[in-house]
Amino acid sequence: MSLSVTCYRCGEGDENAARVRCSCGEPRWIEPDASSFAWSDCRDYEGMWRYEPLLPIDRPAGVARAAGGTPLVRSPGLDDTAGCRVYVKDEGEHPTGAYKDRGSAVAVPHAIAAGNDAIGTVSYGNMAMSTAAHAASLDRECVVLVPDEIPAGRLELIAQYEPTIVRVDGDYGALYGDALALSDALPIGMLVSDSPTRISGYKTALFEICEAFAPDAPDAIVVPTSSGGFASGMWRGIRDLEAAGLLDDAPRLYLVQTAAADPITRAFDAGETDPTALSPDETGETIAHSIGNPDPPSGGRALAAARDTGGAVLSVTDDELRAAKRRFAVDAGFCVEPASAASLAGATRLSDRGDIDADESVVLVPTGTGFKELGTGDASVATERVRRADLSERLGSLLGDRLGAR
Amino acid sequence: MSLSVTCYRCGEGDENAARVRCSCGEPRWIEPDASSFAWSDCRDYEGMWRYEPLLPIDRPAGVARAAGGTPLVRSPGLDDTAGCRVYVKDEGEHPTGAYKDRGSAVAVPHAIAAGNDAIGTVSYGNMAMSTAAHAASLDRECVVLVPDEIPAGRLELIAQYEPTIVRVDGDYGALYGDALALSDALPIGMLVSDSPTRISGYKTALFEICEAFAPDAPDAIVVPTSSGGFASGMWRGIRDLEAAGLLDDAPRLYLVQTAAADPITRAFDAGETDPTALSPDETGETIAHSIGNPDPPSGGRALAAARDTGGAVLSVTDDELRAAKRRFAVDAGFCVEPASAASLAGATRLSDRGDIDADESVVLVPTGTGFKELGTGDASVATERVRRADLSERLGSLLGDRLGAR
Repeated sequence: MSLSVTCYRCGEGDENAARVRCSCGEPRWIEPDASSFAWSDCRDYEGMWRYEPLLPIDRPAGVARAAGGTPLVRSPGLDDTAGCRVYVKDEGEHPTGAYKDRGSAVAVPHAIAAGNDAIGTVSYGNMAMSTAAHAASLDRECVVLVPDEIPAGRLELIAQYEPTIVRVDGDYGALYGDALALSDALPIGMLVSDSPTRISGYKTALFEICEAFAPDAPDAIVVPTSSGGFASGMWRGIRDLEAAGLLDDAPRLYLVQTAAADPITRAFDAGETDPTALSPDETGETIAHSIGNPDPPSGGRALAAARDTGGAVLSVTDDELRAAKRRFAVDAGFCVEPASAASLAGATRLSDRGDIDADESVVLVPTGTGFKELGTGDASVATERVRRADLSERLGSLLGDRLGAR
Repeated sequence: MSLSVTCYRCGEGDENAARVRCSCGEPRWIEPDASSFAWSDCRDYEGMWRYEPLLPIDRPAGVARAAGGTPLVRSPGLDDTAGCRVYVKDEGEHPTGAYKDRGSAVAVPHAIAAGNDAIGTVSYGNMAMSTAAHAASLDRECVVLVPDEIPAGRLELIAQYEPTIVRVDGDYGALYGDALALSDALPIGMLVSDSPTRISGYKTALFEICEAFAPDAPDAIVVPTSSGGFASGMWRGIRDLEAAGLLDDAPRLYLVQTAAADPITRAFDAGETDPTALSPDETGETIAHSIGNPDPPSGGRALAAARDTGGAVLSVTDDELRAAKRRFAVDAGFCVEPASAASLAGATRLSDRGDIDADESVVLVPTGTGFKELGTGDASVATERVRRADLSERLGSLLGDRLGAR
């Protein structure tokens, strides 16, 4: 299959999916010929491979087959908090617990087919785990570049798939550029957050959402945003469906950043086309590890996605994230990572300021499971202590109190 | 809908799904009229609600809608270890990270519809989390009875859904019986590991597996086994499909216990109909927290399931579990909990002793995600440390070593 790999901004393109950046500087993506695609063309495959006709590779072997097909659940318990009709697309229900598996499912087999002896990535979070897992399932060597001061818990999560873990002593933020150069110099397919093949995989989340609503569409989709890769995938998905004539009224894309590192929000508010990288003294600590990115490589494309769809980019604080994470669990039964709570916290802000109406159908996308950061025993938990012999009596009275307090 | 709730052993039954035990002492299950069911009767719903015609309730609201629909992945990387053609049914990809959500999805809404003011359970593991999450998503009070000496990490995992957590001072093993009595005395729907409505939910995992293979069926299914509840669900599913005429050659059910607490294996090997509860000095420590049960309430039914399908019950050691958990990650890209690794460790033993042939298609069912027990930073991890300026040169040489060693 000959690919069309293009730049969303200047329109230039070629067939090289391994080339991440356009000569104009912007990231590229794969543009399929979707003009004749219909929902009935979907394959009878599990998960994201249903959309094989719009993907740059045929369904591969390995854990890639478990990617996609995550639940989309109407969650009325969150309506009051979000100020709209809430649907939750739980991307945490993936083999490595995050939407990253959609991207790895395309990017890793594609890089192998392109002749790379090994796969590599620059990440110490969900992308590292996902890339390592997908390479492992295809029996390929994987190199993960992590910062020298990586916390031991993160290291353990990545190490279980047994990639070669390289702690890089030096400016970790500069490694995105280094990685692209390494890919040219060595037989390693370096997969960064916005490799064109990754973006292809991400768009399947948009396909699943839109197919569930078809022939209608949700009014808006709210996603946590870091590098801008997932937002780009969502936008690419919208473009594909528009090209196919399957989306009359595209959902608005709302992208939510952590206030501790929000260059895309700042650029959106200032009406700029591109974000400006934040200096260390412009960023802060955050519980939203997965989205604290001061220099997002697909920031310009994320801005374009929000503007083109009539959406917005906004930021939320850690206090809002904590509150939203709690509501996900207590009102809807979902355990999401702190960064993923940005989807709900963002929706709350958007409805408060009138961007989202109460009768609108809004899909929140928690991008990763919360289980990777729970169970350490650090939290203090209120419990009752009862002797077994007193259980019936004490439970009866306890229950009366609890039910009365509701 | 009038229910038929029966005893697999003596055949007695009535319509009361809240009654867990038969007067003969054995656990009961819900027996639908499946005689006219065809695959084409499946609903156009996501996940397990596809099988609504064979379930005791209509599709409920809430997180229940996210249950089921887990990936079934051909995983050739595990063939050598397991000694057969391996498929992985990854039950960890659930809202609370375990197959328990299938049971809660039926049992919790059913108990609410039956008029209970609150839901309760006896568990400090996956079932506690799942029951609490499902009750939360339906805005109902939930009471979780945990042992007094529960580890703080476990408590944190359960507490996120904000149930009333009661630490019981006394013999925790005796609480199964207490719970059934409490359910009669108080307006609490106490859901134990083998409540008939839970078993109904579990059987959907079997339906998904068999529908994927239809009109054929896998040769065998290997599941970790603790209380015998999930094994019962698998067997109930087989019986439903046999009643419908959809299963000519049912898969053999192999049930795997931890050698540290394996009363069902002992009874199987001794040719007994029921397991004998193990005393504290007959049990040991194990990393397989989720399946260490010295007194399994559905042990007799699990034995019958294994024998009726031509399968077996067997045990594996912690060393075998550690090795199998590693292979799941390194050869297939799945992060499973230690107890879930019993599926692969069991298959290895079964093929070694000739119970499973190399050309047989065998479904391993890791029942829970490993992420709840990872990321604590306890593991020691080998890494390379490289200065950024030396990255290209050092990576090239590192990679040469790694690829050469393959």
